[in-house]
Amino acid sequence: MVVERDIDDLPKNDANHTALTPLWFLERAALVHPTRRSIVHGSRHYTWLQTYQRCRRFASALSNHSIGLANTVAVIAPNIPAFYEAHFGISMAGAVLNAVNIRLNAPAIAFLLAHSSTAAVIVDQEFFSVAEESLKIWSENSKTFKPPILIVIGDENCHPKVLKNCVSRGAVEYETFLEGGDPEFKWKPPQDEWQSIALGYTSGTTASPKGVVLHHRGAYLMSLSAALNWGMSEGAVYLWTLPMFHCNGWCYPWTLAALCGTNICMRQVNLSKAVYAAIAKYKVTHFCAAPVVLNSIVNASSEEVILPLPHVVEVNTAGAAPPPSMIAEMSEKGFRVTHTYGLSETYGPSTICARKPEWESLPIEKQARLSARQGVRYIALEGLEVMNPKTMEPVPADGGTVGEIMMRGNAVMKGYLKNPRANKEAFANGWFHSGDLAVKHKDGYIEIKDRSKDIIISGGENISSVEIEHVLFSHPAILEAAVVARPDEKWGESPCAFVTLKGDVDGGNEQRLVEDIVKFCRSHMPAYWVPKSVVFGPLPKTATGKTQKPLLRAKAKEMGPLRKSKL
Amino acid sequence: MVVERDIDDLPKNDANHTALTPLWFLERAALVHPTRRSIVHGSRHYTWLQTYQRCRRFASALSNHSIGLANTVAVIAPNIPAFYEAHFGISMAGAVLNAVNIRLNAPAIAFLLAHSSTAAVIVDQEFFSVAEESLKIWSENSKTFKPPILIVIGDENCHPKVLKNCVSRGAVEYETFLEGGDPEFKWKPPQDEWQSIALGYTSGTTASPKGVVLHHRGAYLMSLSAALNWGMSEGAVYLWTLPMFHCNGWCYPWTLAALCGTNICMRQVNLSKAVYAAIAKYKVTHFCAAPVVLNSIVNASSEEVILPLPHVVEVNTAGAAPPPSMIAEMSEKGFRVTHTYGLSETYGPSTICARKPEWESLPIEKQARLSARQGVRYIALEGLEVMNPKTMEPVPADGGTVGEIMMRGNAVMKGYLKNPRANKEAFANGWFHSGDLAVKHKDGYIEIKDRSKDIIISGGENISSVEIEHVLFSHPAILEAAVVARPDEKWGESPCAFVTLKGDVDGGNEQRLVEDIVKFCRSHMPAYWVPKSVVFGPLPKTATGKTQKPLLRAKAKEMGPLRKSKL
Repeated sequence: MVVERDIDDLPKNDANHTALTPLWFLERAALVHPTRRSIVHGSRHYTWLQTYQRCRRFASALSNHSIGLANTVAVIAPNIPAFYEAHFGISMAGAVLNAVNIRLNAPAIAFLLAHSSTAAVIVDQEFFSVAEESLKIWSENSKTFKPPILIVIGDENCHPKVLKNCVSRGAVEYETFLEGGDPEFKWKPPQDEWQSIALGYTSGTTASPKGVVLHHRGAYLMSLSAALNWGMSEGAVYLWTLPMFHCNGWCYPWTLAALCGTNICMRQVNLSKAVYAAIAKYKVTHFCAAPVVLNSIVNASSEEVILPLPHVVEVNTAGAAPPPSMIAEMSEKGFRVTHTYGLSETYGPSTICARKPEWESLPIEKQARLSARQGVRYIALEGLEVMNPKTMEPVPADGGTVGEIMMRGNAVMKGYLKNPRANKEAFANGWFHSGDLAVKHKDGYIEIKDRSKDIIISGGENISSVEIEHVLFSHPAILEAAVVARPDEKWGESPCAFVTLKGDVDGGNEQRLVEDIVKFCRSHMPAYWVPKSVVFGPLPKTATGKTQKPLLRAKAKEMGPLRKSKL
Repeated sequence: MVVERDIDDLPKNDANHTALTPLWFLERAALVHPTRRSIVHGSRHYTWLQTYQRCRRFASALSNHSIGLANTVAVIAPNIPAFYEAHFGISMAGAVLNAVNIRLNAPAIAFLLAHSSTAAVIVDQEFFSVAEESLKIWSENSKTFKPPILIVIGDENCHPKVLKNCVSRGAVEYETFLEGGDPEFKWKPPQDEWQSIALGYTSGTTASPKGVVLHHRGAYLMSLSAALNWGMSEGAVYLWTLPMFHCNGWCYPWTLAALCGTNICMRQVNLSKAVYAAIAKYKVTHFCAAPVVLNSIVNASSEEVILPLPHVVEVNTAGAAPPPSMIAEMSEKGFRVTHTYGLSETYGPSTICARKPEWESLPIEKQARLSARQGVRYIALEGLEVMNPKTMEPVPADGGTVGEIMMRGNAVMKGYLKNPRANKEAFANGWFHSGDLAVKHKDGYIEIKDRSKDIIISGGENISSVEIEHVLFSHPAILEAAVVARPDEKWGESPCAFVTLKGDVDGGNEQRLVEDIVKFCRSHMPAYWVPKSVVFGPLPKTATGKTQKPLLRAKAKEMGPLRKSKL
């Protein structure tokens, strides 16, 4: 018997279906708020109509150079207007934005450009030399090298001579490039919303970089979800502290267009001072930052801070588990910290530690501890579980059993570029495997215990380096801390803490300080967690600002195994 | 030459793709805020976990009765919890919700049930007789009639005997039905997000009802857009003044789950009093209502109102163009009125008169006039134009040239059920034809001038009945007004006004009142717009509360053509 399906027998047509893409947001912003500020960058500012026209010129100029479908365009720049425009102009031409980390060196950039067969490189004048150098490396190492178009972005905060020099070395100036494009360029949404919109290479704390490919559908959904989950609304004023090259600025370039808000750009010179100044000057309502940046805000000198804040400022932090003590300090200053968590593979943050009204009556430390968890899924992430990766069984919600965080749904990447093996592993059993280890609490919120590679196994017991770090962060003399495993004759491994001290701490008497720290740890954690080694000095960072634990682990190994007698 | 498409060659899989459906919102609400109030209805209330479990039971019970894919389930109920649950439970079972207007009579309901081959009828006890009667009509008029399951919903605000009586007449009580379902029912998202989620019949101001079919994708997108465009955020408290049967409550049942907010239900007895009371008692933040309802709030007696309001209450109004005078009066009382516009065919409102900060310095009447326009597209509606339907050319943005409002994108329905001819007309040339006539202002905002059938052609000039109504509404004695064409010997047609007076107006001296109204109109509009006939009396309404202009037009025709000598 044929089931009558009249009610589903109504096909898609031009009137009732179109691809989801954040490009619609920009078109709408220009229509609804043509004269509202879209971007402010020092003395430069644009309206939404201007931004839309500039992006159409951008797309048109790329098309004129035959750059379009399936081509990638690399951008190497700090948070300046051109980078914002790249989030729309490149995909309006049908091409894919590859946002390159500006802290990478030439060989690393050369790898990305070659791996993605970049058709154009758009580079801020400050980073021109490294881009030039990376192209040279690429050309010398590949027989099929086809020189990409090289476009240089000038910036009034840089020396004008440098820009001139770049042009004399064969680059097209960005503004000149735009002038060649049509401000009325008739862009089209992608034929299929599964089409790629962005490519971003992982920073590789554990392995060589992988190219994460994102699509129009996901970018559309996640940018709306990022607004709704964070309570952002129409006309938000967003400060660009978080690099746009970091997971496409966690989708916020697209969100801001959807909200017809205002983007405040900055080149990040003296960060904490600039943040306070921007809040006062532009009435900033929202910004995002990794905990390390919040740390500098909390520890800013008195000349830098402007307190009390003129209004509550919403802060979204992710990239590492924020120490509860820091969340508490931020709250005291008038910032409202929302903790989110995610990966490049999930369009940036895709879980949020959703606040509950009932927490407000708790002591601030307890609140901060609850808020430091990774929480629950974003609206646009349909599946979040902590599972045993072997059995794919969810762990019990007991706050103790550790499993791997797994995600599934529309917030998960298309896959890694040209890396079938990594894709197979990442998507095994129909879930994306994050590689992060967590527990699930009774209230359903998840909490990271460690990256699988960062766990310390001491006497057969798993020790979470993150938990030790949380305690260390709350020590009054410590600015930053990272804990790794050091070989240990008796226990196999034992915790080794690398710490950076606050500026005003007298590091003269190191031994006394070590004793003090160890004593502090003893009173705040089980004895077997207490670091058996404490090392002072700056922490090595990846290009995205994450502490490079592999290097610290190597260093701890070099220190040799801890003898049974010590401590 | 084959274009290298590595970057698009990454297929969908279980980890990175799933159907968009508002069902995800409910699952998430139960996870994130299991103990938060989801629904309050008098002394009854549920938490999000309970609502989720009840919806799963609902879906499970339907499945047990073999109701699923492509089946429709009719609900005939006021705004009570079961109706909210129907927005999830029915689609969790794979079936399609047909929300029936409770103001329809038995023959009209019989038509809908037969046309959609309803598999189940779920009816509030107050409407049981009309449902029973409609099934009888259906059975008597169809040889293929298969009796649907009949489920009756009890309500403590109704007499318990009535419920008992319904059960004795063969209906299953809703709570008994739920008890038969599994609270852990494993629902699945639809295989394809294009799958139908809801069916709603147009109220037919102009023709026989058409069954508008909506899909999961559109419901997901529009419910998020409805939140973002109105500035609703997490935890909103929403008062159910707007019937859920009206375009699925403009998608707000789904929005409230996405926001983990609270639904305040009501059976609508004394409306304006109940609205004020609910604002005070439940801290209502948002409600929706047609202008006719706002009219009753503005004109509520002093015993009913609670002023000043304890906080700003956001009001979304649509369904007819709100008279600017009424928007101004609402603002003065502390309500913030947002005017939206749409049709059943666009999931309810899909355009919004987005407010601009620069309007705030204008006189309140001017602000109200700007706010009374239909505005700009929702985020989830990708195309909105005013076009000449013959040439499909957009009208100039001059505020004067009239064209037809056309829409396209993901906010447009799948189509009309079993009505290929209507679908062909509605989707002609790749745009949805709304049938509403409008102009486009210089700022890009559209403003309705009339339904195409409501325009008055006098001496060859088009006159907008809506504009005359706006003026009439600002007359101090007039509560409601509707203007239609009356045959006219000299001019072909001339405006004829039907008006209802405010309660406290002395209608004794009608002739003097007519003269006063005509004089008022003369000073507020061009002479040829001034109604040549004024008739007092209640206005006939459709089941959704819209004035039935076809009936008034017939009445005006019956009055006979206006003689050349008169007025």
